[in-house]
Amino acid sequence: MTPRRELTEAEIITRFFAHPAPRRRDLLLGIGDDAAVTRLAAGYDLVTAVDAVFEGVHFPRGTPAQAVGHRCLAVNLSDLAAMGAEPLWATLALALPAADARWLGGFARGFGALADAWRVALIGGDTVRGPLGMSVTVHGRVRPGRFVQRCGARPGDGLYVTGNPGDAVAGRLLLDQPRRGSAVAALRRRFLYPEPRLREGRLLARVASAMLDVSDGLHDDAGKLLAASGVGADLDVGQLPLSTALRAVAGEERGRVLALTGGDDYELLFTVPARHERLLARLVRGWSCGVARLGTVSGRQGLRWRLDGRRFGFADRTYRHFAAGRR
Amino acid sequence: MTPRRELTEAEIITRFFAHPAPRRRDLLLGIGDDAAVTRLAAGYDLVTAVDAVFEGVHFPRGTPAQAVGHRCLAVNLSDLAAMGAEPLWATLALALPAADARWLGGFARGFGALADAWRVALIGGDTVRGPLGMSVTVHGRVRPGRFVQRCGARPGDGLYVTGNPGDAVAGRLLLDQPRRGSAVAALRRRFLYPEPRLREGRLLARVASAMLDVSDGLHDDAGKLLAASGVGADLDVGQLPLSTALRAVAGEERGRVLALTGGDDYELLFTVPARHERLLARLVRGWSCGVARLGTVSGRQGLRWRLDGRRFGFADRTYRHFAAGRR
Repeated sequence: MTPRRELTEAEIITRFFAHPAPRRRDLLLGIGDDAAVTRLAAGYDLVTAVDAVFEGVHFPRGTPAQAVGHRCLAVNLSDLAAMGAEPLWATLALALPAADARWLGGFARGFGALADAWRVALIGGDTVRGPLGMSVTVHGRVRPGRFVQRCGARPGDGLYVTGNPGDAVAGRLLLDQPRRGSAVAALRRRFLYPEPRLREGRLLARVASAMLDVSDGLHDDAGKLLAASGVGADLDVGQLPLSTALRAVAGEERGRVLALTGGDDYELLFTVPARHERLLARLVRGWSCGVARLGTVSGRQGLRWRLDGRRFGFADRTYRHFAAGRR
Repeated sequence: MTPRRELTEAEIITRFFAHPAPRRRDLLLGIGDDAAVTRLAAGYDLVTAVDAVFEGVHFPRGTPAQAVGHRCLAVNLSDLAAMGAEPLWATLALALPAADARWLGGFARGFGALADAWRVALIGGDTVRGPLGMSVTVHGRVRPGRFVQRCGARPGDGLYVTGNPGDAVAGRLLLDQPRRGSAVAALRRRFLYPEPRLREGRLLARVASAMLDVSDGLHDDAGKLLAASGVGADLDVGQLPLSTALRAVAGEERGRVLALTGGDDYELLFTVPARHERLLARLVRGWSCGVARLGTVSGRQGLRWRLDGRRFGFADRTYRHFAAGRR
C-alpha cells in the first residue's frame, strides 16, 4: 500500500477549490492571487456576513464531510437570506487536522453543490493546520437601502416563522441513535443539510418590518428580534408549525420544546405590519416550506408564550455561552 | 477575590468590537445584525482577501494579545497592498479557548489600532470556542481593472523588494531568547507588528507589472511570482537589503539566508518594466522602507541567485506544508 501523502496548500486549492466557479461576469479575478477582484453592479449595496463553525461545537465529531461543507456555507447564506439579499461570492478559511484527500473531496462536494445551486462563486480561501473548523464570509447584494434589520418590529405586527423549527435539533439528537425510518431520516437530513431560505428572504424583504434567521433557537432568537426592536410579543405555542416527522418521533409536547429551544433551524423569523399581511399571504402561496403566524407584537416588553389561553412554561435550555454563540 | 466570569458572545462583541468604528459614510449597517451593509463608491472594483492565523502555526504560544490582534489584520491588509488596493472594511472570526477579558482587551487594542490607522471598519464578527486562531476577510477597492496580479512579469523587467526581508524571521527566532539590545528589540518588533505596505502598494500599482507580498520567504515567493508569469530571473544576493539590525544580530552570511528563506516579512515583491524604472525611482523617493533591485527577469525559467558572479547555494528550508501555508 502506498502511504497516504499529505497535500500541500497549493494542491488542496487546485484540486478541490479552483474548479470553474459558477460563471459570473462580476468576478474579475478569482482564487490564486493575493486577493480576488469583483465588480458590484451599479445600483446595489453590498451585504456581508461571517460565521465560523467548528467540530464539536457546531457539528458533532463524525459528521459527514459533505454535510460539513454544506453547513459552513448554508449558515452564512442564511444570514444573507435574513437581510433579504441575493448571494454573490464567498471566501473560506479552512482549518484541518490533516489534509485528507477523501475528506476534502466530500467537503468540497458539499460546499460546491450548495454554492452552485445559488450561483455563489468561491473567490478566496486559506487553509491552515488546526482542529477541524471553517470560517466563511459571504457577500450578497440588495437594492440601495432595501435590507431588513432585526430592529424594525412595531406593536401590532404579526410575528411569523418559515418551515418547521425543531426538526434540525431533533435530527441532531438522532444522529448517534440507532433509530431508523423515514421520519428519522428526514429529521437527520434537516440537521445535516439546512436549506438557506434565500428565495423566501428576498420576497419577504418587501413586507417584513424585521427579520433574522433562527440559529440559536426560536425562543431565544425571537427575544433578540423583539429586544432589538424595543417591543414584546404574545405568542401561541399552539401555532408552532411542528412537522409530521417531529410529531412522529418526539411527540407533540417534546416537539414543542424542541421547536422553542432547539436551534440550528436556519428558518426565517420575521414580523409584518398588519397592512401587509394580506400581501404576505399572496407571496407565500406555493412555498414548499410554509409560513406560520405565531402571534402579535406588543408594546409591552418581554416574550410571553401561551397555550390554550394559559401561560406556557418550559425550561429554556438554549446554550448561550459564547462558545455556542451563532448569529 | 471574585472568580473570573466568562463572557458571553454578545458581551464580547459589545465590549471589545462594537466601538465606534472609523466613521465611514460607506458603512450603512455595522456589527449587530445578521450581516453588514456597505456601499461601494461608483467607479471602483472590490478587492477581497482572506487569511487565517493560528497560535502555534503563524505565531508562537505566548505572543502578546496586542501583537496577535495586529497580525491577523496586518497579514490581510498586506494582501490588499499587493493588489494595489485601498482598504475599506474587515470581518473577523475569532476562535478562543476561553473568553478572557484581559486577553481580549489586548487583542482588540492591537486590531483596533491598526484598523484605525488605515480607516478600516470592522463590519462583522463571530466568536466560537476553540484553539486560539482567527480568520479575517478584508475588503478594499481599486479603480476598474487597476489591480496588480502576480502573473504579469516579462523578460527584462527589474525585480524589486521593499523594506528589509529577514528581519521578521530573525525577530521570531529571538522571541524566546534572553538577548537584549536595540537591534534585538527592533527585530522582534518587526515580527510582532508587521506593517502592511498599503501606501507603497497603491503607488506601485502605477508601474508594477506583477506584485505579491512576501509571507513564505523571499526565495519561495519570488518563485511563485515568476512561475505565475511563466518566466525566470537572475538575482543578486549582494543586493539583498539586509537591515543594520539583522547584520548586527545574525551577521551577513546568516542574514542573507534568513532574508531568502525566512518568511513573515510582509514586504512587497514586484517587477517593473525597464521603461518605468525611472518613474519608480521618483515614486520611492522619501519612502521610509526603501526599495532594492535584486536583478532582472529572464525568459529562461527558474530562479538563479548569484553572489560576486558565482551561483549562490543555500538550504531552502521554507516550510511548504499546507499547515504553514500563507498567501
